[in-house]
Amino acid sequence: MRRWQTVVQELERMIRSGSLRVGDRLPSVRTLCRTRSLSPSTTLRAYSSLEQAGLIESRPRSGYFVCTRPKPPVPLLSIPKPSSTRVAVSDLVFDTLEASRSREVVPLGSAFPSPTVFPWKSLARYLGSSARRMDPWATVGSLPPGSLELRRQISRRYLRMGITIDVKEIIITAGALEALNLALQTVTRSGDTIAIESPTFYGCLQAAERLGLHVVEIPTHPEEGLDLGALSRAISKYSIRACWCMTTLQHPTGATMSEDKKRELVRILSNHEIPLLEDDVYAELQFAPTPALPSKAFDKKGLVLHCGSFSKCLAPGYRLGWVAAGRFAEDLARRKIESSLATSLPIQLGIAQMLRFGGYQSHLARFRRLLANQQAVALESIHRHFPPGYRVAVPAGGYFLWIECAPAVDSLEVHRLALQSGITIGPGPMFSARREYRNFIRLNYGHPWSPEMDRATKRLGQLLR
Amino acid sequence: MRRWQTVVQELERMIRSGSLRVGDRLPSVRTLCRTRSLSPSTTLRAYSSLEQAGLIESRPRSGYFVCTRPKPPVPLLSIPKPSSTRVAVSDLVFDTLEASRSREVVPLGSAFPSPTVFPWKSLARYLGSSARRMDPWATVGSLPPGSLELRRQISRRYLRMGITIDVKEIIITAGALEALNLALQTVTRSGDTIAIESPTFYGCLQAAERLGLHVVEIPTHPEEGLDLGALSRAISKYSIRACWCMTTLQHPTGATMSEDKKRELVRILSNHEIPLLEDDVYAELQFAPTPALPSKAFDKKGLVLHCGSFSKCLAPGYRLGWVAAGRFAEDLARRKIESSLATSLPIQLGIAQMLRFGGYQSHLARFRRLLANQQAVALESIHRHFPPGYRVAVPAGGYFLWIECAPAVDSLEVHRLALQSGITIGPGPMFSARREYRNFIRLNYGHPWSPEMDRATKRLGQLLR
Repeated sequence: MRRWQTVVQELERMIRSGSLRVGDRLPSVRTLCRTRSLSPSTTLRAYSSLEQAGLIESRPRSGYFVCTRPKPPVPLLSIPKPSSTRVAVSDLVFDTLEASRSREVVPLGSAFPSPTVFPWKSLARYLGSSARRMDPWATVGSLPPGSLELRRQISRRYLRMGITIDVKEIIITAGALEALNLALQTVTRSGDTIAIESPTFYGCLQAAERLGLHVVEIPTHPEEGLDLGALSRAISKYSIRACWCMTTLQHPTGATMSEDKKRELVRILSNHEIPLLEDDVYAELQFAPTPALPSKAFDKKGLVLHCGSFSKCLAPGYRLGWVAAGRFAEDLARRKIESSLATSLPIQLGIAQMLRFGGYQSHLARFRRLLANQQAVALESIHRHFPPGYRVAVPAGGYFLWIECAPAVDSLEVHRLALQSGITIGPGPMFSARREYRNFIRLNYGHPWSPEMDRATKRLGQLLR
Repeated sequence: MRRWQTVVQELERMIRSGSLRVGDRLPSVRTLCRTRSLSPSTTLRAYSSLEQAGLIESRPRSGYFVCTRPKPPVPLLSIPKPSSTRVAVSDLVFDTLEASRSREVVPLGSAFPSPTVFPWKSLARYLGSSARRMDPWATVGSLPPGSLELRRQISRRYLRMGITIDVKEIIITAGALEALNLALQTVTRSGDTIAIESPTFYGCLQAAERLGLHVVEIPTHPEEGLDLGALSRAISKYSIRACWCMTTLQHPTGATMSEDKKRELVRILSNHEIPLLEDDVYAELQFAPTPALPSKAFDKKGLVLHCGSFSKCLAPGYRLGWVAAGRFAEDLARRKIESSLATSLPIQLGIAQMLRFGGYQSHLARFRRLLANQQAVALESIHRHFPPGYRVAVPAGGYFLWIECAPAVDSLEVHRLALQSGITIGPGPMFSARREYRNFIRLNYGHPWSPEMDRATKRLGQLLR
């Protein structure tokens, strides 16, 4: 190895390991020549090589700095078949979920972040004290829509974003999945057609399958979200009864629609009196200091059913979510009473107290920092181990990466082989009514990026070759 | 008032108030004559009058004793139309539920027992300590079917009755209503026909309505339950895809089928491979020291989906139930994952600990004694205040009375007028797909029988006249 290559290797290792971070200044050419006894041309050759690799940049009259890795190319806009279809995806989803359940596997395919990062002690304290002080009569009085105190706390969180939501509009549910299912049952009947994203969250596909709905899959850009032109065309072609959409940190792509686009989405749907089921379960996991508003903020007609949850951001396993259901609130509360009567009252009261007194905001800040850091490390690990040519959009939050591999890759086969190595992944066909996206995988970076995760990523890279 | 009438009134008051109880011996004729300075004929006339009223009885060579009130006549076997029908009952049910929600009304129409009788302190203690000790990874590992520890505890309760149920067969749900809804979704598709009791629990009617099912209402006797001959005829006439049935303490009648009849029910359905959804939420509220077995005890083919709950007997508002789903267990767990992902884990763990250490059995014994006592007082109050001619079956547990009033009575009108007096009742049409049973009402005796309850019963009696 030549001397300049040794320098490149050393510096690259320091950058990759995080010893040198984005924005850190490298030694000047003169300093490096002196301390390493190198010629200026050798030093310049090393720096130039690092610059070409996108690891450092020279700033005029300032020197060399570690720079942000140039973003890998983003997957293209999806092009699902424009026709309406029945859904058949459940078996595949259940097989994948089942595989992720064991604690022994490397959870790159998990749907959840690491359960170790949540404020369990505070949660338990507020749950216990709320249960002790619970008024027995509240078991009757807090039937749907649910605990008034909790609905007040949720309403206040909307108000922090400048959105006014009346507590009467909020129905408490056993997590967002129940909220979304109830919302769908409220605004559709068997045989109806709904518009959904493609790729999309499999829970949406399963709900459509179970309720006997047809879906029209709308092209969805991995950074910009739903294609509104395609949506408009679908509306003019089909009798769309509802639109189910994740406008922020879409699952699986991570796309966040701009606020202008969200406003336009609401306008298009409102013009046709089409309800929007806004699945917003990752809203609290946006890395930006000022998070993007949901479409609900632009809803003037009460047509947006905004579904939220504490399962991703505060209390997994407690099963608490809600829907701000606009004009459908009363109907939806009835569906809730019919299908599960009520949401566990001690859980409602405990979370309400946690929101009020438990340092939710500081927990969120810590959690977001952690995820942002893990995202950077995961991207780095993928860059190191995956064969070149993959595409990935870098989401502004959450804990998923949606990766487009070479066209020849069969992610179901990769999934099968990875499992044999004790690694799970989310194969692309889980996210499509027609089992498309065969060369895509969803990777979870919501777990501490241990050496084991890096080894698993390396193994995936081998399988992808 | 004549002297014998004064004696009658005094003794009647002592019997009604409980100062004199069933089996107590009354003073001999000679003693009464002496202490009250009465003639023997006056005393005998008083005793004869009480005897005619059914309050006392003379036993040869022993004297007079307070006797059990002869049971009022029982309503006749219901005769619903034998044809299959779509259901339309929800609005009525919701209006009635809404009216029962206020703490200000007299809750004779409530669906719940008084919330003051449950072991809230113990529940809160076990909930808090379970949440504190919860393994964060259990939020992933305890996805449906649910917490293994809780399923073990439930399996042990079956074993107390001599029924062996594998933990693999048990799916934990958010109360029995979710269990029943999931069970129905697992074994039927939209457009199918199911057999149900008549009258029946409105939750069953609402589920059928929402899932687009047709129902065949089977005649149901207020003491002996489902008419098996009629069920067999329905099976031969229609393509019945499932039977939803409360075999013990049926809602609203209180009927409990004999074990022989339950065995026969399972035999009939098994012969046609028809799943039985056995709604058994009042099982723990049977007054008898040896409670009746469920049909599940006789299930050899895994066709019985036995649905239970802790909401009526231990922890209302916690929302915890289960289904022992036989051969449908895996399918049902998938429906659960699709519709609400999981049941709240701290709740599962807390109740599991309560079952193990919390004195559930002694709570149940106390609660049953309380209900049995309140039932006797409620029947007495009704006897005093209702116009004669009503019919009621006296159930062997639970907290409902199903009362057939004079044919001219319109229970919806009584419901409306009673509400104006701050009293709720359960009007009969709530319990029928075709809004039949207009002259029936369901009364709740699950709340302490205060003077206010007695006054409310008196007011109802006036409205019924």
